[in-house]
Amino acid sequence: VRARIRSSTDVDRDRRDLAALYERTRSATEQLCAALSPEVCTAQSMPEASPVKWHLAHTSWFFETFVLAPHVPGYQPFHPDFGYLFNSYYNAIGERIARAERGLLARPTLEEVMSYRRHVDERMRECLARTRALDDAVVELGCHHEQQHQELILTDVKHLLSRDPLQPAFRAREAARRAARPAARAEFIAYDEGLHEIGHAGEGFAFDNESPRHRVFVHAFELADRPVTAGEFVEFITDHGYERPELWLSDGWDAVALHGWRAPLYWEKDGDRWMQFTLAGLRDVDPDEPACHVSYYEADAFARWAGARLPREAEWEIAARDLPIEGHFVESGELHPCATEAASERDRPRAMFGDVWEWTRSAYDAYPGYRPAEGALGEYNGKFMVNQMVLRGGSCASPRAHLRASYRNFFHPHARWQFSGIRLARDA
Amino acid sequence: VRARIRSSTDVDRDRRDLAALYERTRSATEQLCAALSPEVCTAQSMPEASPVKWHLAHTSWFFETFVLAPHVPGYQPFHPDFGYLFNSYYNAIGERIARAERGLLARPTLEEVMSYRRHVDERMRECLARTRALDDAVVELGCHHEQQHQELILTDVKHLLSRDPLQPAFRAREAARRAARPAARAEFIAYDEGLHEIGHAGEGFAFDNESPRHRVFVHAFELADRPVTAGEFVEFITDHGYERPELWLSDGWDAVALHGWRAPLYWEKDGDRWMQFTLAGLRDVDPDEPACHVSYYEADAFARWAGARLPREAEWEIAARDLPIEGHFVESGELHPCATEAASERDRPRAMFGDVWEWTRSAYDAYPGYRPAEGALGEYNGKFMVNQMVLRGGSCASPRAHLRASYRNFFHPHARWQFSGIRLARDA
Amino acid sequence: VRARIRSSTDVDRDRRDLAALYERTRSATEQLCAALSPEVCTAQSMPEASPVKWHLAHTSWFFETFVLAPHVPGYQPFHPDFGYLFNSYYNAIGERIARAERGLLARPTLEEVMSYRRHVDERMRECLARTRALDDAVVELGCHHEQQHQELILTDVKHLLSRDPLQPAFRAREAARRAARPAARAEFIAYDEGLHEIGHAGEGFAFDNESPRHRVFVHAFELADRPVTAGEFVEFITDHGYERPELWLSDGWDAVALHGWRAPLYWEKDGDRWMQFTLAGLRDVDPDEPACHVSYYEADAFARWAGARLPREAEWEIAARDLPIEGHFVESGELHPCATEAASERDRPRAMFGDVWEWTRSAYDAYPGYRPAEGALGEYNGKFMVNQMVLRGGSCASPRAHLRASYRNFFHPHARWQFSGIRLARDA
Amino acid sequence: VRARIRSSTDVDRDRRDLAALYERTRSATEQLCAALSPEVCTAQSMPEASPVKWHLAHTSWFFETFVLAPHVPGYQPFHPDFGYLFNSYYNAIGERIARAERGLLARPTLEEVMSYRRHVDERMRECLARTRALDDAVVELGCHHEQQHQELILTDVKHLLSRDPLQPAFRAREAARRAARPAARAEFIAYDEGLHEIGHAGEGFAFDNESPRHRVFVHAFELADRPVTAGEFVEFITDHGYERPELWLSDGWDAVALHGWRAPLYWEKDGDRWMQFTLAGLRDVDPDEPACHVSYYEADAFARWAGARLPREAEWEIAARDLPIEGHFVESGELHPCATEAASERDRPRAMFGDVWEWTRSAYDAYPGYRPAEGALGEYNGKFMVNQMVLRGGSCASPRAHLRASYRNFFHPHARWQFSGIRLARDA
Repeated sequence: VRARIRSSTDVDRDRRDLAALYERTRSATEQLCAALSPEVCTAQSMPEASPVKWHLAHTSWFFETFVLAPHVPGYQPFHPDFGYLFNSYYNAIGERIARAERGLLARPTLEEVMSYRRHVDERMRECLARTRALDDAVVELGCHHEQQHQELILTDVKHLLSRDPLQPAFRAREAARRAARPAARAEFIAYDEGLHEIGHAGEGFAFDNESPRHRVFVHAFELADRPVTAGEFVEFITDHGYERPELWLSDGWDAVALHGWRAPLYWEKDGDRWMQFTLAGLRDVDPDEPACHVSYYEADAFARWAGARLPREAEWEIAARDLPIEGHFVESGELHPCATEAASERDRPRAMFGDVWEWTRSAYDAYPGYRPAEGALGEYNGKFMVNQMVLRGGSCASPRAHLRASYRNFFHPHARWQFSGIRLARDA
Repeated sequence: VRARIRSSTDVDRDRRDLAALYERTRSATEQLCAALSPEVCTAQSMPEASPVKWHLAHTSWFFETFVLAPHVPGYQPFHPDFGYLFNSYYNAIGERIARAERGLLARPTLEEVMSYRRHVDERMRECLARTRALDDAVVELGCHHEQQHQELILTDVKHLLSRDPLQPAFRAREAARRAARPAARAEFIAYDEGLHEIGHAGEGFAFDNESPRHRVFVHAFELADRPVTAGEFVEFITDHGYERPELWLSDGWDAVALHGWRAPLYWEKDGDRWMQFTLAGLRDVDPDEPACHVSYYEADAFARWAGARLPREAEWEIAARDLPIEGHFVESGELHPCATEAASERDRPRAMFGDVWEWTRSAYDAYPGYRPAEGALGEYNGKFMVNQMVLRGGSCASPRAHLRASYRNFFHPHARWQFSGIRLARDA
Repeated sequence: VRARIRSSTDVDRDRRDLAALYERTRSATEQLCAALSPEVCTAQSMPEASPVKWHLAHTSWFFETFVLAPHVPGYQPFHPDFGYLFNSYYNAIGERIARAERGLLARPTLEEVMSYRRHVDERMRECLARTRALDDAVVELGCHHEQQHQELILTDVKHLLSRDPLQPAFRAREAARRAARPAARAEFIAYDEGLHEIGHAGEGFAFDNESPRHRVFVHAFELADRPVTAGEFVEFITDHGYERPELWLSDGWDAVALHGWRAPLYWEKDGDRWMQFTLAGLRDVDPDEPACHVSYYEADAFARWAGARLPREAEWEIAARDLPIEGHFVESGELHPCATEAASERDRPRAMFGDVWEWTRSAYDAYPGYRPAEGALGEYNGKFMVNQMVLRGGSCASPRAHLRASYRNFFHPHARWQFSGIRLARDA
Repeated sequence: VRARIRSSTDVDRDRRDLAALYERTRSATEQLCAALSPEVCTAQSMPEASPVKWHLAHTSWFFETFVLAPHVPGYQPFHPDFGYLFNSYYNAIGERIARAERGLLARPTLEEVMSYRRHVDERMRECLARTRALDDAVVELGCHHEQQHQELILTDVKHLLSRDPLQPAFRAREAARRAARPAARAEFIAYDEGLHEIGHAGEGFAFDNESPRHRVFVHAFELADRPVTAGEFVEFITDHGYERPELWLSDGWDAVALHGWRAPLYWEKDGDRWMQFTLAGLRDVDPDEPACHVSYYEADAFARWAGARLPREAEWEIAARDLPIEGHFVESGELHPCATEAASERDRPRAMFGDVWEWTRSAYDAYPGYRPAEGALGEYNGKFMVNQMVLRGGSCASPRAHLRASYRNFFHPHARWQFSGIRLARDA
């Protein structure tokens, strides 16, 4: 299994750096889950969300399957059934438990899963220290894969806790949090038409779906300088946004009826106050924070209501490519999107990274000339290129080092449990 | 809440006996679950089965709601939300979490539930020691209610563990178990026609659905002297029993197609051997042990194949009423039905109690003159009197003291996860 | 295929009478459908209801399959595929189209189906005139079978027309209809306890499920002298009957929530008026007419609200067995239940036959000693003996000659599209 | 309701031409349905397909609603309920019958629907002759709308007839049909990279989703010179194409499992022969004819198996824009795709129009700068721009005059009942 994934490791990072990345990543996952009870780690609240225990094991299975098994002579899996239990979707690897049934795994216990992690870590350390023929690119891929699951652990456990009538907090909010800063009025920034290059260029890690870098003609457009706020979304609700079919895509209008949507996921009205369930428990909706936990359909309807539209992914990337990776990431500890700070300089979009993933109107598809990796790792991204929409930027649950301007996240248009928000665009 | 449930406590048992029953019952529940991990206690494998954690809490909620709250002045519930979480189906008490969502209760943790039990136990002890106005019949009902849940804990956890691909054992089988004794060939015992009385009479506890005792005319019939064995059921399978529509009720034939039934629940074929998942893990089907985990439809089809029929509940009770409560119960530790011992005397049915619940062809309905209790406890039995079939006798998961000849268990005809088996009857 | 169905034809009716019954029955079916368009005859509104075209063909297929094929040497079916299309549920005969897909039969056209009927009629006439070895009991069964379908044609087409937003009438109501007579206040009639015989006795046709006649002990009971009226049912609604869980069986309460029931089927509220869709189109609910189109669950809840219960089928039969077959039948042309006339004599229940089928609380099961016919005709009744409730008496859509005191109709407890109503009973 | 739809009628076509287009279109619809029975016209075989009767009425409702009602002073609708019955999806117009329930319309009868058509035709003729203020563009839109429904009538009735076990033909195949010509081996034609314009330009009618014409950068690509043949698709099947997950998109693989797909819709294997249901009844699959009735998922999997990919819609349009509208259209009377004729000149794709719609890998979205019409007609195309894939070219069921290079058809990726096929593309 040799993944042809573009990676800078081949060029300029030595094995020591790779080993350090591995340690940092594995440790970050465990710190995230350190306070969780076995009960919380076992339950599954919907087919799309997995138990924490499963995430902890699956990320280890990834290294075991794609690094240890092919490169350690005579390697014996930690447990003969774990391949069945913790394979996510790799048909080339074999059969696996149905996604919706991951919550039935009473065994292995959380403690057994942690043993599995330690076992894999020990072997990986040996491997990284000694094995010459190791495919460093796959190790690096495994680390970025685990970062993705760090974010999913947070979004999945948030969904689970929200379904528990006790609505317990994942982690208490720090008392000393800064007061929210008022979000400035959004301004649109203009971009000229032109032939641009998008996609991953040159150095550093990227997933295969960010390649190849290629030319695209982009018409003149405008992009809002910050995400839509919760306060603006309340205006949409107050203006009967959820009751006016002319604002909605047909499938979106059906989803509103089917699911009874009347507000973003996790919002509920208590008299006149909008409350929301967060990873720190129930609290008021702050009108200055970015609107979050909306589906593509809601993002699209909001944009239509606002006389705008959602950006295409090329537009978003052109606007983002020269910006620093700034915003609120998982490292901030907030685990919730924060109000966008006032601009220090004009004509530059803010909060492009972190806080909320931004829905684009681009359906997820291969870039011209895209080739998935050979073998099982070719299933990583390529087979999902239909029926999903691209999101860009990252969220308050993403590790900062995980993000870049060419990063392409993707979800089905009805999905709401990710930290997904809205940035408006307009034709020039 | 004063339940008019027939009970001998009013007459001849003093409060000390009641307190001892309470202690025995609560302790038995906890011993049953002592070795279970928080993970096992949290997961839910289907809507009909509840997490162990929920059973542990619900049985405590029963005492809190029906004993402590009405009889302890100023009683404050242990937790304000537990009424919502642990009410099973009492509409008169209030709203509650959907049955299928009990597995979403990450919180309270198992430890918190055990604290809840201790809290209730302490208050109950005070109450039993001091409260004059206590309704002893409701305390006794609560104990028998908890015995029912002891059995459900076993059947629910068996279902859960069977769905875990690791198929872990609930408890290892004792090495020293006696060898299975060959089941004698079944004989039919003849009973004359006549006007009989059935239903609970006189002394001791009974549920309201066993009353009133009343007359019923029963035609001459014959009843098999032991339950159908697994070996006999294998013959039915081998004779294409699951493929011959003429053997099945129409709804049963639909269920065979819908669920793809080809054998009892928990059975699987490994080459030529029939294996079964048990609470002690996977093992061979013993041809001498009673057939178990069959639906009403399968029991009925088997009976038709065998040229017989299922008994009516009055027939069963007439045959059982003078027999001692003998068989294999939860106390045996087997947690699986055992081969019926050879008859010590002829013309007496064996294994009427314990081992497997026996499906009758009687739909569950009220006895003539039945009146449910006033108030919420009237929901205990009465509102389920449609669409379910009566089972009689008890199982290897029932506490021996819980059973009696007039006991009426009931489940939907497609249910298979109880320890449900077959005893044949014939018209004379 | 020799059906052992109890029939008097073997004894005392000559072939001429049988031929006349055949002609009358076939003709009555066609008169019923004479005014229906091909469009109405083709559509299917739900899986449980069949297109009229299908009923017209199925009843002919019954004679072709059970009379012509076995008794006419070398008989060739009218069309090789009609066995697949028009077999209802006889597994012994072979595969068939799924019930829910009968509305996909664009072909054969209505005209082709009428040709099929004429073809079968001609052969049947020859057969009845000449064939010595004919099984007269099966011909008689076929006629009573077709009478059942006459009623189903009316209930199924009523359901279909009600789902058409134009709500077209099946047949205009006659202008000269008598004014409805006020329904007298219901009185309960007392019956003593005793050992009774029920089931079909002696002369005349009966279905196999009415046999054998057998003894049953019945406790003292009381039975209302007329069905519950629509006006009384409005009182139940007004008293929040559909919103009070304590009145409902658990499965019934679930059905109320699932289906959003707030009134009988076909009722709708127009301001303060209750309107109902009838076979003559939309009209006011007449408070004096019997309540109709209620499920078992609603009948049971109404009875509980009224401080009564539903009768057992033995009770009903004991009260009905000596009464004349009086009431409003299909021959009246009303096709809707009519107000019960005031009693001409006291202490006699009225409208036991016709108008509305009366739900009993008896689950449909075999009588002691019941044996279904051999072969395919054994599937006629026996395989439905689970999950259904017995209804007694007949309705405004039943042919009068089809009914008798021992007749057992049966439907699932959630069914509402039959002309099903309520008669109350009480323990003495 | 003033639709801003790009149309040449304002410029260079006089009203007489428009009236002639109207007459031709209406007449073509009725000729298509002339031989259909009321039964065939009433039934509905799945929610996505409508009864013929409904199509006949809906196309008339379109003219009544968007032309007659706004432009004829005091116009009264033909029937007050037809707006509810025959509105397809225009929320701005009002409520309507659920799509899946169109088969419940026993009334109006086919004859009543034909009266409705005549009524609308008469008023339209008056209107076209006399009304000055008429919006000609909407009349033209209504005609192209009706052409779309002519195609849907064929695809919907094909689906219905295929579900009838008798599998009746819509129309017998003409005896004198030319023998199928062998399909030449497919060649790939190369196209250079470049900045192109796509979208509707200049003259003639186009739907709003073809505008605005805009620039797009297209990388070098190759396009097959003819559609994939049925014979080639048989090779895919024989090579276990439906059993190899590595060939499929993840959602496609799920669809294969869910629906049990093993061949294109309407194909069935009879021993070694592949048969297919056509509008002329069941016949052999001709290996030379284009593969048809495949979903996007199957088209995509086939392309991957063949070492190619599906074209993007811009690629397709660039290849098609200078070609004549040649192929087999509805006017040929074949109502089935025909083998592609050998090339008369090299390096030119053949059968780009007619025969089969060709799936592209482009998700259906708005062109840059797209603006839907104001009012209800803005719902015509815009609200469907998510979750669907673009198809190009037209089919054997399309009127020739309906097609052009910029035409964008769109369906969900699982849809198979359209005449949808495959043309391969490759990166250069």
